[in-house]
Amino acid sequence: MRIAQIAPLAEAVPPRLYGGTERVVSWLTEELVAQGHEVTLFASGDSRTTAHLVPCAPQGLRLSGIRCPIASHLVMLNEVRRRADQFDILHFHVDLLQHALFRDLAHKCVTTLHGRLDLPDFHPIYRVFPEMPLVSISDSQRAPMPPNLNWLATIHHGLPATAYPFHPSGGDYLAYLGRIAPEKRPDRAIEIATRAGVPLRIAAKVDPVDRAYFEESIRPLLDHPLVEFIGEIDEHAKRDFLGHALALLFPIDWPEPFGLVMIEAMAAGTPVIAWRNGSVPEIIADGISGVIVASIEEAVTGVERVWALSRAAVRARFEARFTARRMAQNYLTAYERLLRAPKRGQTFADEMAVV
Amino acid sequence: MRIAQIAPLAEAVPPRLYGGTERVVSWLTEELVAQGHEVTLFASGDSRTTAHLVPCAPQGLRLSGIRCPIASHLVMLNEVRRRADQFDILHFHVDLLQHALFRDLAHKCVTTLHGRLDLPDFHPIYRVFPEMPLVSISDSQRAPMPPNLNWLATIHHGLPATAYPFHPSGGDYLAYLGRIAPEKRPDRAIEIATRAGVPLRIAAKVDPVDRAYFEESIRPLLDHPLVEFIGEIDEHAKRDFLGHALALLFPIDWPEPFGLVMIEAMAAGTPVIAWRNGSVPEIIADGISGVIVASIEEAVTGVERVWALSRAAVRARFEARFTARRMAQNYLTAYERLLRAPKRGQTFADEMAVV
Repeated sequence: MRIAQIAPLAEAVPPRLYGGTERVVSWLTEELVAQGHEVTLFASGDSRTTAHLVPCAPQGLRLSGIRCPIASHLVMLNEVRRRADQFDILHFHVDLLQHALFRDLAHKCVTTLHGRLDLPDFHPIYRVFPEMPLVSISDSQRAPMPPNLNWLATIHHGLPATAYPFHPSGGDYLAYLGRIAPEKRPDRAIEIATRAGVPLRIAAKVDPVDRAYFEESIRPLLDHPLVEFIGEIDEHAKRDFLGHALALLFPIDWPEPFGLVMIEAMAAGTPVIAWRNGSVPEIIADGISGVIVASIEEAVTGVERVWALSRAAVRARFEARFTARRMAQNYLTAYERLLRAPKRGQTFADEMAVV
Repeated sequence: MRIAQIAPLAEAVPPRLYGGTERVVSWLTEELVAQGHEVTLFASGDSRTTAHLVPCAPQGLRLSGIRCPIASHLVMLNEVRRRADQFDILHFHVDLLQHALFRDLAHKCVTTLHGRLDLPDFHPIYRVFPEMPLVSISDSQRAPMPPNLNWLATIHHGLPATAYPFHPSGGDYLAYLGRIAPEKRPDRAIEIATRAGVPLRIAAKVDPVDRAYFEESIRPLLDHPLVEFIGEIDEHAKRDFLGHALALLFPIDWPEPFGLVMIEAMAAGTPVIAWRNGSVPEIIADGISGVIVASIEEAVTGVERVWALSRAAVRARFEARFTARRMAQNYLTAYERLLRAPKRGQTFADEMAVV
């Protein structure tokens, strides 16, 4: 199949540092190439891929100091449009800008929505272009959206089976990984660990926008013998950090659309203690790959429960459901389903299996 | 002529509070209607106009709590596109999003660029769509843009002759009006006034993003017997505030693309002491409608010089160059020039008279 993958330009594909969407686009692209498809990647010029790269900006915009990506994205979409005849499928990983420009090609367009969809800001575009085929990254992500959209599938993210090696023995500390931000609730992580009497290691960056929150609400809590703040860590350190943990704490307070860190932990064999919110019940199998909780008390009890979980079973759950290969296969099924549709503009019944 | 005016949706047209672009769109629209044209205004639903209003959002987005206007703007542009056959001219006051969607209608599209153009973020779109006809709001605004764009004209903003009544006698204080922001240099205004020994009244809002700057850099300077900080004022109070001033201080430190407050002061007969930056030399006639300076010393001397200027001559300069009627006439000339062009896609020689 001749497939165009259209990535955001904010970061390179894969990203140098952060960039969840660009990482997923990279994993999907490489897997589709590995499965023998003819893939063209529209992305920033410093991207690295085995697909055919069409550079649409000299380098990832964020590290170039470009703060408004709209003009660059519009230029990329114009280039995609110019070459549209060369592809069977145009797969967009930018949320909004393409719908008006590609409406007449809806029969071969797929848009994966990577962000939270509970802000009303974005709904007008979906109401006006309901025929554009969409993929959600969790079922829960769709809940706040207008009715009667053309959902092609929910396809959970996946990562390469070798990206996070299995650590059969784990360790004795709880891990918090990601950003220090109010909706991520690092304060809950600290309370859970100290009440459970288990060490907590916090590997997290503090974005400028969250600096005041960190200083006022989190730094005072770090002065506890069980709590260690180790700041940002790179991809390599992340593997050991996750692999050597007893469990990952994911005490979120927002409708997380997916949450890559959960499947990264699972790949390492590390179970996840996660708040029942957003995608969590779709990603974590309670009692198998982790524990789903709704209160500090449940989470403290959960710390005892995770000792009993089989790390091999956690890894097996990852391999069954959250590899890049499974993700790519689901996308291929979705592409084929779209191309088989009797005519464009038709709304698909929303019945595709999730896994 | 059948003219579509396509306004930003951030604020109503005219805006309830702030919104320079929406005020200009309102003045232009009402003047075109008054001159007998058939005008359709695409704008938020709480706009007020004598043109035919096509509501494209229930109300201005900012006061609705919508922070990302892109989806709403795309929906509006889709509606404009659907009705494009109904108009001789499509006049866009949104900067970026329309170019790809209206490329084949370039022969009847005009985009007025309302913002600063010295950020590289926006340049890619203009490089890729060089045939789209553009209007700058000052010649200096164009300087950082890529070469070989299709500039149709520079058309300075104008406001209704009655909006700011002429105050023949003026007053004895210096006025600072607008926002407290580093690039507006309220600190310079305070230094000029205190060194000149003349009272300064500061009527300005402090946006959240500028709160720290205000507290750290400006508040300590307000404790001077000659300086009075009166905070935000409404449109009505603005007339008296400008009309009763000796001069407006405009000590900017950025490439101001136009600077509406300068012509508001001129309409009231109040001369402007302005830094040589951005549009200033195009708006202020040194020694007639104000004094152009490049240092604190020159500005302090300027305070003495403005006593000698004729307020009637300042008003006359406004009436000759900066009324909404003159602005509308210039736009009509630009529209006619575009429609007379031998074929679309052609680049116009950039020779149209500015005034």
